[in-house]
Amino acid sequence: MTKLLIRNATIITLDPQNRILQGSVVIEQGRISAISPHPPQDLSGFSEIIDGYGRVLLPGFVQTHIHLCQTLFRGAADDLALIDWLKQRVWPMEAAHTPESLYASARLGIAELIKGGTTCALTMETVNHTEAVFRAVEESGFRATVGKCMMDAGADVPAALNEITDESLAESLALLSRWHGRANGRIRYCFAPRFAVSCTHTLLERVAQLSREHGVLVHTHASENRDEIAIVEQATGKRNIAYLRDTGLAAPHVVLAHCIHLNEEELEILSTSGTHVSHCPSSNLKLASGIAPVKEMLARGISVSLGADGAPCNNRLDMFTEMRTAALLQKVLHGPETLPALTALRMATIDGARALGLEPEIGSVEVGKRADLILLNLDHLHTTPQPDLIGTIVYAAETSNVETVLIDGQILLREGSLLTLDETEVIADAKFQAQKLKEAVQ
Amino acid sequence: MTKLLIRNATIITLDPQNRILQGSVVIEQGRISAISPHPPQDLSGFSEIIDGYGRVLLPGFVQTHIHLCQTLFRGAADDLALIDWLKQRVWPMEAAHTPESLYASARLGIAELIKGGTTCALTMETVNHTEAVFRAVEESGFRATVGKCMMDAGADVPAALNEITDESLAESLALLSRWHGRANGRIRYCFAPRFAVSCTHTLLERVAQLSREHGVLVHTHASENRDEIAIVEQATGKRNIAYLRDTGLAAPHVVLAHCIHLNEEELEILSTSGTHVSHCPSSNLKLASGIAPVKEMLARGISVSLGADGAPCNNRLDMFTEMRTAALLQKVLHGPETLPALTALRMATIDGARALGLEPEIGSVEVGKRADLILLNLDHLHTTPQPDLIGTIVYAAETSNVETVLIDGQILLREGSLLTLDETEVIADAKFQAQKLKEAVQ
Repeated sequence: MTKLLIRNATIITLDPQNRILQGSVVIEQGRISAISPHPPQDLSGFSEIIDGYGRVLLPGFVQTHIHLCQTLFRGAADDLALIDWLKQRVWPMEAAHTPESLYASARLGIAELIKGGTTCALTMETVNHTEAVFRAVEESGFRATVGKCMMDAGADVPAALNEITDESLAESLALLSRWHGRANGRIRYCFAPRFAVSCTHTLLERVAQLSREHGVLVHTHASENRDEIAIVEQATGKRNIAYLRDTGLAAPHVVLAHCIHLNEEELEILSTSGTHVSHCPSSNLKLASGIAPVKEMLARGISVSLGADGAPCNNRLDMFTEMRTAALLQKVLHGPETLPALTALRMATIDGARALGLEPEIGSVEVGKRADLILLNLDHLHTTPQPDLIGTIVYAAETSNVETVLIDGQILLREGSLLTLDETEVIADAKFQAQKLKEAVQ
Repeated sequence: MTKLLIRNATIITLDPQNRILQGSVVIEQGRISAISPHPPQDLSGFSEIIDGYGRVLLPGFVQTHIHLCQTLFRGAADDLALIDWLKQRVWPMEAAHTPESLYASARLGIAELIKGGTTCALTMETVNHTEAVFRAVEESGFRATVGKCMMDAGADVPAALNEITDESLAESLALLSRWHGRANGRIRYCFAPRFAVSCTHTLLERVAQLSREHGVLVHTHASENRDEIAIVEQATGKRNIAYLRDTGLAAPHVVLAHCIHLNEEELEILSTSGTHVSHCPSSNLKLASGIAPVKEMLARGISVSLGADGAPCNNRLDMFTEMRTAALLQKVLHGPETLPALTALRMATIDGARALGLEPEIGSVEVGKRADLILLNLDHLHTTPQPDLIGTIVYAAETSNVETVLIDGQILLREGSLLTLDETEVIADAKFQAQKLKEAVQ
């Protein structure tokens, strides 16, 4: 790794004081080694100098709930409810995935994420071929915590997705040992049981135990949909979150996507256990799942971060859309002062890093952290004028404002162009593989 | 005007059969003169040939509630409720507008609208200097129905916005006679009383009468906010929409922005009178106004179209955001099949044209209509793949997909670049005037 300088930028640090600075950032060995009002006098040692004049530098976005395997299904399941959406469209397409189609899907998603300023994601993949996703992450330079989806129970599951408990665990452990910590720690593994409906009690308990033993995250869905909650309650006699707690899956190393329909006891479990919630506002609207009680969760100190979910339920993978939507929905429920812009921006960055156990490494612009950084150009029509930078970013900006993206000190997007992925080829391959997949499920 | 050809495009007509065609469109004298599967054999008579291969051609978006005068206030009133938003921020800034600042504000808004594929807007301006807006519309080639804001009542109104009834009417009539029908009919006038709270009964009645005599629209706000409704009810003893009806302002030439809080009688008035509703979903969320009963209105045959409202309550002027948000909000209230993509796209185009009385002229791709057209390039990461074109446009596309825009047969955006406005200069002027305005209100 080499020595980089970003000079003369406006820096939204999102440090504990939420400082906004004017100045320069020095990056050495992939980490921020200095932040100062003025660039260094001696510029000779730098392999690259990025002029940040008129640009806003901030930490890259961290999305805590993504399915890269579903990017290829974008638009294929519009205007359907969750259970139909899963059983009629998403599961058959996941079952039909080949290593080639999964690789194309992951690359399409990663390219879109990088272009939109997301530098890190927690992703749940499908049951099979997870190697293809790791390969796409490794090659692209993206930072991800990836889990193979685990499913050993449930009705109407395609044969290709229906696992034997021990085999699911064995494959997860094999992926963990092969990939966790690879690429200078940029790639991490997580256990990803799909949701309580698709998993046996044994599987969930063993995941809880193994994740603690190996020090890795657990990433699952919870309490997204009233039908899902009813199925779990009928099978276990417990509310979803209480059931997960009893299997050992309410803990600081667990990220639960959605958490829309929660009773008082469940809010208390999340709060006292330090379990993290990934809020996916667009997905929750589009699937008519509901609006999560974000204001209540934040008031209780529950960790809430953001994710776009999979492409077929959004249909974008765009953190600007999720920040804005999250803020606007809480306003209409609780008043216009609720979830102000800074809260939304922290959820999209440092709070996501904390959910992933990566707060010491990423999520803010601070000396010692890894250089996962984005530069925005706000000199666009739709972001003019800018009386408040944070409000401009949350309410007005969009992916077209993202100009430069670095992950681990490596430049992945320069003046809007991807450097580690060939955009034209990624699109062409995605179209080709999507067509093959469509034919396979027909 | 000259003869243009757009060839080999995928045409989303939004005609009564919602046909999607492959083919070419010929434009003569600003109107569509032919649509055919193949381009003409003889290409010699064309002054311009646009290659539509791999592009999607559709009617330009029609926004039925915009305030160009407020574009300069973008971001200046975040996280405030409607009445505070008006009295603390928006009214003082409107009062401080000079012809120069208003011209800058209008140009910024028009440039953003064109770049985002909006080709026509119904706009309510401020009380003063409306000539500056007309000038900006005329020069830019944009299509707009513009009204000077009328305010002759209400508390806490800055002196500069407080009008004498007769003078407000006289100025409106003078603007009408000077501008209505100008630029080949591209510019139209409308009466724009702000809302019932800001207008005397006399003003509203005379607007109703004069608008019928002159055959022009009336554009006002109604039932956006519970406080507003309570003020009207206290003053008149009537619900807002019933009061407007009694002044003569429930009619097919009236567009009411918002209409969020309606009782059964008010829904019935809107339905039987043919009054048009402009739904502004982002604005309604951000100001915590509520979610309009769009499903119920559509079920009763009420005309509902879309608008971004002013920049400070959105903060974008982007029809992609409004289509998507409108659809997603009705889904979360009423189920995922509600307000499907095609309905949202019709609201954004032909239904907007109908609200403005311009359905014979614009809003669909049909022979004889004016060539207000946009070409989208969907070969972007975030719009790949495209199993359904309409779903892709409504749920995934964004302004960056807009490549070419024509209004009245004139090309205003080519490969993403504005032709009638200098984007850099528009941004610089907007920043300069926004700063002056900020100093004036401090």
